[in-house]
Amino acid sequence: MKTLVYRNAISLDDLAMVERPVPTPGPREALVRVRAVSLNFRDLAIVRGQYGDFRAPLVPGSDASGEIAALGPGARRFAVGDRVAPTYVPDWIDGPVRADVIRRRLGGPDDGVFAELVCVHEDALVRLPAHLSHEEAATLPIAGVSVWQALVADAGLRTGDVVGVSGTGGTSVFAVQIARAAGARVLVVGRDPSRLERVRTLGAESIDASRDRAWERHVLEATGGAGVDVFLDVVGGEALARSIAATRVGGTVSAFGFAGDARATLDLLPFIRRAVTVRATSGGSRASFEALVRMMELTQMRPKIDRVLDFSLEGVREGLLHLAEGRPMGKVVLTMGSDR
Amino acid sequence: MKTLVYRNAISLDDLAMVERPVPTPGPREALVRVRAVSLNFRDLAIVRGQYGDFRAPLVPGSDASGEIAALGPGARRFAVGDRVAPTYVPDWIDGPVRADVIRRRLGGPDDGVFAELVCVHEDALVRLPAHLSHEEAATLPIAGVSVWQALVADAGLRTGDVVGVSGTGGTSVFAVQIARAAGARVLVVGRDPSRLERVRTLGAESIDASRDRAWERHVLEATGGAGVDVFLDVVGGEALARSIAATRVGGTVSAFGFAGDARATLDLLPFIRRAVTVRATSGGSRASFEALVRMMELTQMRPKIDRVLDFSLEGVREGLLHLAEGRPMGKVVLTMGSDR
Amino acid sequence: MKTLVYRNAISLDDLAMVERPVPTPGPREALVRVRAVSLNFRDLAIVRGQYGDFRAPLVPGSDASGEIAALGPGARRFAVGDRVAPTYVPDWIDGPVRADVIRRRLGGPDDGVFAELVCVHEDALVRLPAHLSHEEAATLPIAGVSVWQALVADAGLRTGDVVGVSGTGGTSVFAVQIARAAGARVLVVGRDPSRLERVRTLGAESIDASRDRAWERHVLEATGGAGVDVFLDVVGGEALARSIAATRVGGTVSAFGFAGDARATLDLLPFIRRAVTVRATSGGSRASFEALVRMMELTQMRPKIDRVLDFSLEGVREGLLHLAEGRPMGKVVLTMGSDR
Amino acid sequence: MKTLVYRNAISLDDLAMVERPVPTPGPREALVRVRAVSLNFRDLAIVRGQYGDFRAPLVPGSDASGEIAALGPGARRFAVGDRVAPTYVPDWIDGPVRADVIRRRLGGPDDGVFAELVCVHEDALVRLPAHLSHEEAATLPIAGVSVWQALVADAGLRTGDVVGVSGTGGTSVFAVQIARAAGARVLVVGRDPSRLERVRTLGAESIDASRDRAWERHVLEATGGAGVDVFLDVVGGEALARSIAATRVGGTVSAFGFAGDARATLDLLPFIRRAVTVRATSGGSRASFEALVRMMELTQMRPKIDRVLDFSLEGVREGLLHLAEGRPMGKVVLTMGSDR
Repeated sequence: MKTLVYRNAISLDDLAMVERPVPTPGPREALVRVRAVSLNFRDLAIVRGQYGDFRAPLVPGSDASGEIAALGPGARRFAVGDRVAPTYVPDWIDGPVRADVIRRRLGGPDDGVFAELVCVHEDALVRLPAHLSHEEAATLPIAGVSVWQALVADAGLRTGDVVGVSGTGGTSVFAVQIARAAGARVLVVGRDPSRLERVRTLGAESIDASRDRAWERHVLEATGGAGVDVFLDVVGGEALARSIAATRVGGTVSAFGFAGDARATLDLLPFIRRAVTVRATSGGSRASFEALVRMMELTQMRPKIDRVLDFSLEGVREGLLHLAEGRPMGKVVLTMGSDR
Repeated sequence: MKTLVYRNAISLDDLAMVERPVPTPGPREALVRVRAVSLNFRDLAIVRGQYGDFRAPLVPGSDASGEIAALGPGARRFAVGDRVAPTYVPDWIDGPVRADVIRRRLGGPDDGVFAELVCVHEDALVRLPAHLSHEEAATLPIAGVSVWQALVADAGLRTGDVVGVSGTGGTSVFAVQIARAAGARVLVVGRDPSRLERVRTLGAESIDASRDRAWERHVLEATGGAGVDVFLDVVGGEALARSIAATRVGGTVSAFGFAGDARATLDLLPFIRRAVTVRATSGGSRASFEALVRMMELTQMRPKIDRVLDFSLEGVREGLLHLAEGRPMGKVVLTMGSDR
Repeated sequence: MKTLVYRNAISLDDLAMVERPVPTPGPREALVRVRAVSLNFRDLAIVRGQYGDFRAPLVPGSDASGEIAALGPGARRFAVGDRVAPTYVPDWIDGPVRADVIRRRLGGPDDGVFAELVCVHEDALVRLPAHLSHEEAATLPIAGVSVWQALVADAGLRTGDVVGVSGTGGTSVFAVQIARAAGARVLVVGRDPSRLERVRTLGAESIDASRDRAWERHVLEATGGAGVDVFLDVVGGEALARSIAATRVGGTVSAFGFAGDARATLDLLPFIRRAVTVRATSGGSRASFEALVRMMELTQMRPKIDRVLDFSLEGVREGLLHLAEGRPMGKVVLTMGSDR
Repeated sequence: MKTLVYRNAISLDDLAMVERPVPTPGPREALVRVRAVSLNFRDLAIVRGQYGDFRAPLVPGSDASGEIAALGPGARRFAVGDRVAPTYVPDWIDGPVRADVIRRRLGGPDDGVFAELVCVHEDALVRLPAHLSHEEAATLPIAGVSVWQALVADAGLRTGDVVGVSGTGGTSVFAVQIARAAGARVLVVGRDPSRLERVRTLGAESIDASRDRAWERHVLEATGGAGVDVFLDVVGGEALARSIAATRVGGTVSAFGFAGDARATLDLLPFIRRAVTVRATSGGSRASFEALVRMMELTQMRPKIDRVLDFSLEGVREGLLHLAEGRPMGKVVLTMGSDR
């Protein structure tokens, strides 16, 4: 079976598509035939060495969708043919994040899912939403689940709340969709008028940060001076202080990424005065994934896909380049083809 | 000004419309010109002596909507002319319920709002949703706020959750609307096919309990055997055990009323096995009222009104009789007329 | 190896000590040499047929302490020789209770731990507190963990809170110890003066219900009329309504058992007026067990043992009889002997 | 009556002790005869202009203890002679922090309590712990209540948790005492061996940061590599990143102050990887104050006082200088004398 692998080092030059033998599922494992995978900013950060402690050889990839091809002894949660996705943090079943559940992560430090077939413990699989294609479902494990964990499970988003979101990439679009499904108002801060136009079709309001660097003023203005209840910040760097300033007294900033800069400087006096909580988020539990699936089936929500590429070395390179250049509008998916 | 009052005893025979002098607002109080009031099951229970410890003379009524006619010294939260509603539990500002905040309640033990003008401390007033008439807004303080407190503040309802609701009265209809706004699925258990038809237009599914007394089986069936996440029980009596049986393991039953019977018998073994929480709810905080208002403005939700009667002794009697006979579909409102 | 088993029916007459082959640990399993086990009210309820749906043959027993004798392939959480206890609800790792985690329970419906050696998945094992003997540690999995789950994890007990506890059996004594360690005040309601004397040595205050059936009045009096923050009710039946009456407005009754009567009748009006939450509790998560272990090591807390019997058919019968007769003061333990 | 006041500017040069007429309590107000007040780092920050937006004339002071000398009309929560303390954030009754409750704060922007008599709304008063002197009780409103709000109300501290604390000043000592009362383990990071010796007598362990700037390594070592559950950071600046590194995955850093530096720089990658929450804290609710009082009475806890000075211009200057020089061990109190 075809498998993508960093052979000797975590570098694009060392990434190769190789042929590996089909693995045999052990006790309570399932062999999953992967139909589609998706790319995340994390994949890019790993290639850039920002997670320098991962060791080759490593199969990349954290997001996949597929079908159960075979079951190992004792497996009983699913049947052959079931459409499933592996959870990105396989040991995180439920409850808040803890050190012992985040040691293992697909795509680094553990081998990931960019392969035609993968063996996964049945406790680390979730049934797909029935109305989604594999290409759509492959976007869920990191982006969808992490947004759910941050907004719904951790920040306790309630209907009528106001959510701020930075950017229009895959994570940000999920944040718009999930927050709208939860009955919240959403303000998206971005720099590209045509993308802001498109998030408005998803029910968000938009603030064009290309016109005024101090965009937090416009968030405050749009909320009667109060600020948002929850701000999902994917940019980091100097934007984090603006996100805090755009959040209401007692509100929460979800520190979700560092697409801008991995260092952030904070003035503690306004931070403490506003009594804001900055909560770092990284992945989500299986229970969050299952709750997301249930919500998507109820509301018939579909993920937004920026583009679908072939599952090939070229496809992965093209997708990562696309991510690096300017963050797509929605998710970048690699497909194995539906006829396999 | 006209004031409704139980003169010597809490009984319908002793209820009278009397003329009283217009009160003067004290420090930080507002004089509110009442435009509309609404009736609650509580008003009926008080007349029936189920709250036998209230003493006459007592002005009844817990729900009102009006405008600020004058302000006492030091009042600064509102301006004359602002459209407001008094909170039913005036000392409950925020946080969970506590003994010291529920001593005072409008309409018993404290004088209520069934009068043309009432004096209210400004901390016990909430700005109305801008898009609502006074008739609509008068339905919020008990029914709307209590449902919000139970489902959103206390049970932590999340999008994708399943909510069970008994009945089609004013409280139940609010539960349908609020749960739907929060992105939840709603199952209503009722006995009147035409009313169930109408709750379906609000986005709920319906279960006709007139066909099968053991309606909990149908709730379980509709949820793949799991049961609902939250059940809002307004009936009490023998229905409470059914509500528990219809709720998922680890779920919550909100014990909201006792329209059926004020005594309930529980089998502890199934209760403990299902690890259900039964949470009694009674009113809500001002923070919950304000959050409800914000959500209603965002979603443009409008309360459902069963009928509007005149604010008169006859109107109140007719309304209470209507409540007693079979629970209306939506709320019963008494209006002071819009031309005053 | 010696194994206790209900051979053809769940009845004391059909309980036998048989010889079975030593099992081989499968992937990620550990073979645990059991050193001590303890009895629970649950064991008695199963014998009495109150859990009539369990099928023989069944190995009873939910509580054990032992050492790892061998490891199956892939097991890495523990080493041979480690002192461990199996979790009573093996699939409940963390987070709130859910249907999918409570299907499996040791001692029914799944085979239990009343055997010399048992195979357990490593994810369902917890390291013992270092300062405890096996006899002491064997009391933790149901009684200690369930009390922790109820008081600390679910009710969110805080220092300075007041906790009410009914009875002086094993669960009740754990409740006293854990609540005291958390900095709470504890009131124990019991009927036996000598046992109440002994709970006072653990830092509790006592209320003698043998003198006044309406003991809830004394709880209210001892709390300035307010009632307790949390009441842990192990009696059920008519006591449940008294526990609610003894709990403060907005407080929580943990419905923990039904030693008295499995049917309870509630008056809904006082229940709703007090806005009490009745939360059924059944077991706890591995995360709760681990938190309990950490606290016990920090405070050097030791469980209270009523008596230690031999692990034999006679020992089990004697222990169950002792439980049935009047609830011991602390836990009843069966030991395999320390010299093995 | 003697009143301390910033006359024309917020500066030590402009601070004066003046004579003012005794105020008359308005409706629901109490006239409180102040017996003792205490100083906070906040008083120092205000003088330094770090809160530059406060306007003179301003009576400083946020912490006081006294007795009720007279009651205004309608006041009913207390009686003349009751020993009480004003709440620092008078509108914050219960629940989480919100913008509308923190507008008013004693000692800036609102007039404070450094006066012989003050008028306070009865809803903004709390009964003192019976076992404390006024000098002791005067330390509670900011330091005691804020620590309770941060550790107990917000971070949900549980028995067995590990708490990290920076410094040995008044706030830090309260954190040690409250965390110990809650059954937690406490690690104090400080630079003065004699003060660290003294916090050990309160039940804390100590880490001497004067020996190794990278003190977070010692916190990790003392917790088996895991880090603490909650870190209370009063230093800010570059220490904040160390506090995050010393906190377990999923743990909470309470950003409590900026005694070191008001600017902090964070590396987002380790922050996000550890999934830490940084929660800014500022004051606490009346409900938190009342819960603190109840706990202190139960445990007979007494605040630690560094020194008691006279309530005089010289006393305030000396106390602020003492705060500025090196942070005392415990609180600095100014007394009106016990014979008045």
